[in-house]
Amino acid sequence: MSAAEAIRAELVGLVGLAHVAPADDMRLLQDATEARRLPARADAWVRPGTPQEVAAVMAWCYENEVPLTPRGGGTGLAGGAVPLEGGVLLSLDRLTSVFALEPQWWRMHVGAGLSTAHVRRLASENGLLFPPDPGAMEQSQIGGNVATNAGGPHAFKYGVTGRWVSGLEVVLPPGRVVTLGGPLRKDVAGLDLTSLMVGSEGTLGIVTAVWLRLTPAPAARLPVAAAYRDVAAGVAAIESVLASGVVPAAIEFLDAGALAAARDVLPLALPREVGFLVLAECDGDASAVEFERGEVTEALAAGAVALHSPSDRESIAELWRWRAGISAAVAAQRGGKLSEDIAVPLERLREAIEGVVEIGERLGIPSCSFGHAGDGNLHAAFAFDPGSEVELRVAREGAHAVFALALELGGSVSGEHGVGSLKRDFVSRQLDPSLLELQRNIKRTIDPKGLLNPGKKL
Amino acid sequence: MSAAEAIRAELVGLVGLAHVAPADDMRLLQDATEARRLPARADAWVRPGTPQEVAAVMAWCYENEVPLTPRGGGTGLAGGAVPLEGGVLLSLDRLTSVFALEPQWWRMHVGAGLSTAHVRRLASENGLLFPPDPGAMEQSQIGGNVATNAGGPHAFKYGVTGRWVSGLEVVLPPGRVVTLGGPLRKDVAGLDLTSLMVGSEGTLGIVTAVWLRLTPAPAARLPVAAAYRDVAAGVAAIESVLASGVVPAAIEFLDAGALAAARDVLPLALPREVGFLVLAECDGDASAVEFERGEVTEALAAGAVALHSPSDRESIAELWRWRAGISAAVAAQRGGKLSEDIAVPLERLREAIEGVVEIGERLGIPSCSFGHAGDGNLHAAFAFDPGSEVELRVAREGAHAVFALALELGGSVSGEHGVGSLKRDFVSRQLDPSLLELQRNIKRTIDPKGLLNPGKKL
Repeated sequence: MSAAEAIRAELVGLVGLAHVAPADDMRLLQDATEARRLPARADAWVRPGTPQEVAAVMAWCYENEVPLTPRGGGTGLAGGAVPLEGGVLLSLDRLTSVFALEPQWWRMHVGAGLSTAHVRRLASENGLLFPPDPGAMEQSQIGGNVATNAGGPHAFKYGVTGRWVSGLEVVLPPGRVVTLGGPLRKDVAGLDLTSLMVGSEGTLGIVTAVWLRLTPAPAARLPVAAAYRDVAAGVAAIESVLASGVVPAAIEFLDAGALAAARDVLPLALPREVGFLVLAECDGDASAVEFERGEVTEALAAGAVALHSPSDRESIAELWRWRAGISAAVAAQRGGKLSEDIAVPLERLREAIEGVVEIGERLGIPSCSFGHAGDGNLHAAFAFDPGSEVELRVAREGAHAVFALALELGGSVSGEHGVGSLKRDFVSRQLDPSLLELQRNIKRTIDPKGLLNPGKKL
Repeated sequence: MSAAEAIRAELVGLVGLAHVAPADDMRLLQDATEARRLPARADAWVRPGTPQEVAAVMAWCYENEVPLTPRGGGTGLAGGAVPLEGGVLLSLDRLTSVFALEPQWWRMHVGAGLSTAHVRRLASENGLLFPPDPGAMEQSQIGGNVATNAGGPHAFKYGVTGRWVSGLEVVLPPGRVVTLGGPLRKDVAGLDLTSLMVGSEGTLGIVTAVWLRLTPAPAARLPVAAAYRDVAAGVAAIESVLASGVVPAAIEFLDAGALAAARDVLPLALPREVGFLVLAECDGDASAVEFERGEVTEALAAGAVALHSPSDRESIAELWRWRAGISAAVAAQRGGKLSEDIAVPLERLREAIEGVVEIGERLGIPSCSFGHAGDGNLHAAFAFDPGSEVELRVAREGAHAVFALALELGGSVSGEHGVGSLKRDFVSRQLDPSLLELQRNIKRTIDPKGLLNPGKKL
């Protein structure tokens, strides 16, 4: 019996034969960064059915010094759920209970394995909104969104995932189930361990259930798309929106390269000279939203070469479906893409967008950016042929140059995708060494053997 | 030379003669809990003028094992800034620089000693809003608000202080100045140490500067006050507001006792049988806010015996001035009050409000509650004669019974005032022992000598 077989035999006793398997399917070992060919490997794949089973698996790993990598929907963009040191890969996908759905109190309590889209539908069916809307929400799980503090277009108005989390059930080393917070809307009785867990990418504990806050669904949402000749004109228009007195729900952008990749399916005809697109949306009461879109449209109009303000439900849905497809369209150009997610102070947005283009030109590889302009959050992408080792290497170089650019502009190497295994070296350039040491000390305090998601985040 | 004199002599070398004094003024040693007569004492009072001086003082304390208690505006309601173990009392009141006021980017960067009201005025003068509005904002300092994660009436819509903090400058043991976060709107490059510091009440570090997020000021705000015969009718009306589809900016309440204390100055005549008041407010665009107040008024009307919906600026201001004066009016009944701040899940609001009354009746002492109904956050008050040791003792007993009530209802012993020195015993009943131990381990990791604000929070 191999070592891996021995591990699986032990785990069968904890979660049952049906829920232990070899981890030999590459789809399981990789996440959305599979084009980067991370050296993934695990000895066993387990799918516990309860938090107590998660705790039992963790306790066994702790006892036997076996690495443990938690996995949600596998949609990560930083290699955070890719097991790099063998051991146990633990999926949360069986934890899909809806423990409480209480629209009258604007909240729900659900298992970590529920998909984000499912959470949003449950809210929506009850007249409520769970605002975070990361790109892969049909596949991503709410526990993974908490672990990465995922964002999305409407984070501009509504904030990222953590803002909607009032409590967590977490399994902490060496294998105990604890509850942090709960359904309360306010609570300062202890240190904010809930926020410490949010975004910790499974390095401190494994999220097994979540208390979520909800808000009444806006009665109406009205987008406006505005096209510009270049980055300078588009970014100036975004600044005008910020001065308009209105808080749009979303302020998205596409640069010329992203537009070129996604232009064929864009549900509006654009003049040939367009090199930048802003997509903003207002939401709220029916009367307010008309007024607000008017204000935002007026702000965007200066310098625009085209404006598109659909009002019927189908056209609006079509515009957002197109927005959701941009990432795939960019990848389709050459079959693969590296996509890096940086955040910069708003006043450096133009430099960041132009800098990504310059990096691609310098390296001779197609580069572009798109994303959440209002939050200064760019998805910088390098398209490459996944069959070419050389192109992959150049794309990696491009990604590294983008990280360096973010730091040069006073920004962060990750706005919403997390650090995973791909950005660790750059985090150590971003953060003060004493703060890195402090984070490692906190990690050691909680996970003294360093077995939880090793090689990630810290 | 006494030990205290020796300490002061050392500190003079660090911050200058003008900024070191004996800590013998009781106004300085106490906060808003002075009626509870905490045994406050300190050997020296220092007022550093820079973060570097704060770091030098901390380094000296660490070297010499001297306790260090940071102090903001001294408006705390949990004894958090009251030095209990001697040593150095450090005021942040000289750190009032406005490093950056950038309305175009919806943010500012200010020293910790700036008053909360000043922060709000700076925002307001630039068409923006810093939403947190704790009661004592003219005296409270923004650093203290961060340290306690202060709330206020409008936290229902806008959230508490932490939601508006994107970065902190903090002095950490053994005396170094570090920066957590900054002006970025999104950043997941490390563990969320900013949130860990927010609400840690000076037990992990001393906040010296803050990056704050702002939002465009709403064009209009319209309140509505609704009066009910009893708690049951009022709480049912609040539930209707939550079902209305509108997000009010604030949903406040006063029970019969609080109303009786504040009735003489209430700017509206109420029928004699009124025993509960709800004060809600909507804000936003001029058109939206009219609509929204209409919806909220309709929800509140069922069961109400009186409604008051002022629309002119002066009447609105008068209503909120009255709200701000309730705490003092309750205290004025017998000269002193103990006020405890608990939070309960919204569905337990009625039980909590009725429970506070029952506790007062049982103990034979005037009790009442008021506060932030929409957040399930009650300020439960016991009025007593500050000259009577017996009454103080009974009031303390009442406060303890209120904490027990909060826990029984699945709530927290602190919604927004913090734990300080007054609620520590109850926190240990609220939180799982393993989580308390985890918090203490994190505290030890950051402050291994346990010198920072000893006897507080943890």
